[in-house]
Amino acid sequence: MEKYKIVIEYKGDAFFGWQSQKNGETVQDTIENALTQLTKEISIVEGAGRTDAGVHALGQVGHFILDKEWNPNKLLEGINFYLRNKGVSILSVEKVPNEFHARFSARLRTYRYDILNRRASSPLLRSKAWHVKTPLNLDSMKEGATFLLGTHDFSSFRAIKCQSKRPIRTLANIRFLKEGDILSTFFESKSFLHNQVRIMIGTLKLVGEGKWNPLRIKTILEEKNRAEAGPTAPPYGLYLTRIDY
Amino acid sequence: MEKYKIVIEYKGDAFFGWQSQKNGETVQDTIENALTQLTKEISIVEGAGRTDAGVHALGQVGHFILDKEWNPNKLLEGINFYLRNKGVSILSVEKVPNEFHARFSARLRTYRYDILNRRASSPLLRSKAWHVKTPLNLDSMKEGATFLLGTHDFSSFRAIKCQSKRPIRTLANIRFLKEGDILSTFFESKSFLHNQVRIMIGTLKLVGEGKWNPLRIKTILEEKNRAEAGPTAPPYGLYLTRIDY
Repeated sequence: MEKYKIVIEYKGDAFFGWQSQKNGETVQDTIENALTQLTKEISIVEGAGRTDAGVHALGQVGHFILDKEWNPNKLLEGINFYLRNKGVSILSVEKVPNEFHARFSARLRTYRYDILNRRASSPLLRSKAWHVKTPLNLDSMKEGATFLLGTHDFSSFRAIKCQSKRPIRTLANIRFLKEGDILSTFFESKSFLHNQVRIMIGTLKLVGEGKWNPLRIKTILEEKNRAEAGPTAPPYGLYLTRIDY
Repeated sequence: MEKYKIVIEYKGDAFFGWQSQKNGETVQDTIENALTQLTKEISIVEGAGRTDAGVHALGQVGHFILDKEWNPNKLLEGINFYLRNKGVSILSVEKVPNEFHARFSARLRTYRYDILNRRASSPLLRSKAWHVKTPLNLDSMKEGATFLLGTHDFSSFRAIKCQSKRPIRTLANIRFLKEGDILSTFFESKSFLHNQVRIMIGTLKLVGEGKWNPLRIKTILEEKNRAEAGPTAPPYGLYLTRIDY
């Protein structure tokens, strides 16, 4: 028996999210099927982040166990052969010690959220960025973001349906990168609550538009009430960028 | 009568190229139809570059004449309304003097060619970059590119079907930008021959793979024979990036 770690890229709008489900093609199901076609073994692929439908990944991580020992390069080429044209691709395969767990061993998760900030829509970025027409004030957004940094009760920034037992999270870093009309915001945390990044972005967008004062973010955190924060930003601007172990 | 200049973005794989044709949806036809729906006038949209099927544009430029005078902002919003979900978007509209001609007044055209250089394919860059698995040596490509700079007879680097009378062109600049696994090459020239950028990239790729010596590019130019150069790189890695006037 051997344990393998894989790094995965996928186009979120090609799937009903990461997590295996009875009806609907998910990323997990698609990879597990390819793996079975290749190895003739049935294995479960555990993912580091359970991304929702529409959310993309550039560096999702998974692990699985196989009875037979494989050369990692052959495994990579083989899985990708069965994944061709499916909207998901394996970027690397490596053997890992039995203690490794894609989800529980993760030290830091990085998500990126892309906003296209201009009047005209972009045919090339369709399903790849959130189109916001109102000019965003980056300085205000940066000021608002400072209140989110560190350890807080993020109850105002999690989906009503979030199943996590505790709403406390530590946001290690928020970074903004403006390139032309595209504003990318990077969020780093050991783990996130359900929809946390998308609600933070939906809130920061209102601050950037000048509709809300940056200070209001502090109040929203203190209220511990989802209704106080902004709307959940659409999934297709969100990218699971990397997982550090 | 007023003349308007428009800047255009489009997703190349949504069209049979720029140029109007009887069968098949082209970018020019699509914009002209939207314009007629909006203005009830029939006008021809002249483009700066006649991109082939599959080739994208971030900054194509066109011009057209309307009898009625329009507020440029209303014209922008109006055309984009009729272009929604068509794979093409107008980025800006401005009034221009009657002497302006999108094609003939162009001083400099910039094209970008994107290569994804890694083993695994990218679901997020499908139809957006050429996937080359062999590691490319950027230094060799840069060395080979120097021979293309300046004024040459580019007969070896133009499609057999190219209709230009003279094969002489002046390549003003070639610039390489490596970001992660993506190698973007920028080409600047007053004008290009048919398929010139794609044949130059197809040739530089062989140099980058170590199959051809950089010096061979000099010989290829001297031979003035299309058969001497590399294959034509696929259209979907190519972007008409900007036109300077």
